[in-house]
Amino acid sequence: MGSSAAVAVAATVAISSLQGITLSKREVYDISFEAEKDVHGTPSGVDNAIATHGSAIIFRRGQVKRIKLDGDVPLVVGDTGVRRNTGEWVAKVRERREKCKETVDPIIRLIGKISMRGLQLLRKGCLRELGELMDINQGLLDALGVSTLALSNLIFAARGAGAYGAKLTGAGGGGCMIALTSRDKSSVVAGAIRDAGGTPIITGVSMEGVKIETEFKEA
Amino acid sequence: MGSSAAVAVAATVAISSLQGITLSKREVYDISFEAEKDVHGTPSGVDNAIATHGSAIIFRRGQVKRIKLDGDVPLVVGDTGVRRNTGEWVAKVRERREKCKETVDPIIRLIGKISMRGLQLLRKGCLRELGELMDINQGLLDALGVSTLALSNLIFAARGAGAYGAKLTGAGGGGCMIALTSRDKSSVVAGAIRDAGGTPIITGVSMEGVKIETEFKEA
Repeated sequence: MGSSAAVAVAATVAISSLQGITLSKREVYDISFEAEKDVHGTPSGVDNAIATHGSAIIFRRGQVKRIKLDGDVPLVVGDTGVRRNTGEWVAKVRERREKCKETVDPIIRLIGKISMRGLQLLRKGCLRELGELMDINQGLLDALGVSTLALSNLIFAARGAGAYGAKLTGAGGGGCMIALTSRDKSSVVAGAIRDAGGTPIITGVSMEGVKIETEFKEA
Repeated sequence: MGSSAAVAVAATVAISSLQGITLSKREVYDISFEAEKDVHGTPSGVDNAIATHGSAIIFRRGQVKRIKLDGDVPLVVGDTGVRRNTGEWVAKVRERREKCKETVDPIIRLIGKISMRGLQLLRKGCLRELGELMDINQGLLDALGVSTLALSNLIFAARGAGAYGAKLTGAGGGGCMIALTSRDKSSVVAGAIRDAGGTPIITGVSMEGVKIETEFKEA
């Protein structure tokens, strides 16, 4: 949900300024999936699907299910500025799992349970409780070995500034964290992330997906 | 194991410099237990038991079992310098457990399982594997809400300097972290903890417990 919202924002800019033409959602999906393949090798298709169509989704075993949300879900993404290779961090988790299967497997199952419980809370708009689950999930991701000090810095900063909860998003090892806040705390949380050395993006869940905000003008 | 080793060191100093007399182990235990009651209210007795008698212990439901260790277990304790109230942090975990029982209970059970697996590895002297379990445990403690940025700072510093593993020790919320290292990495790990703003103590597991290192001299 988190990184996907950020990807949706990025896609908006790219489509409007680079193409200068209106594309169908299907074309946007296909083109962005090609870009995903270039970057990740074997992408699941989840990131470009949600960036194209918007909303929140449940993603399980390659199956994408869109979730209709009624209320506002204020998010602040914090970019550590640390580039990392997703595949490398996925491999690290696999390695830890091979060495400590009896510990790592229950953690992965618990993360799955938290996601399903989080879905219920998201649907009911219980953001405070959802934030606490994000905090718990962050600890479990740290237990898998994918958190870093740079992420930790931004996560504690966001919590300290009054976010409901904060966690790394994506593969970990760098990249971005995401904080769930109330709308009136968004800028304070963003400021705290900036003070901690990150680049904040105040965002939310778009139900619309990719759109053209500025028409392309020939130079 | 971790904090207890640190307490053993502290007790050595206190007994030799403040009392100026030789006490039986029973007397040391009784006096230090009174001090524990003053500080913690309802102490388990584990800290003063291990500081008095030394060794590693398994502590379960108030039962203390001493563990004989053959090999060297090089430890570096890192003090964040952040004072906190243990009772307050125990209450925070209780509160999170009440709100998120179905998530927190499995985490607590998993921490118990890790401790028993850690005991096997400690007995076999498999320090590298034990270190990885410490890292996993740190994530689970973070999921319970007792880690802080100050602890995280020292923990990542110790891991970055080549520790086998690192985790907070004690109640969390501040206080100390502990790193397991090879003997030849101890000073590098200690240096990294100092550079990250902590106060390092290079130590290990004492099989002897409290002892008088310097005789008290009347001023």
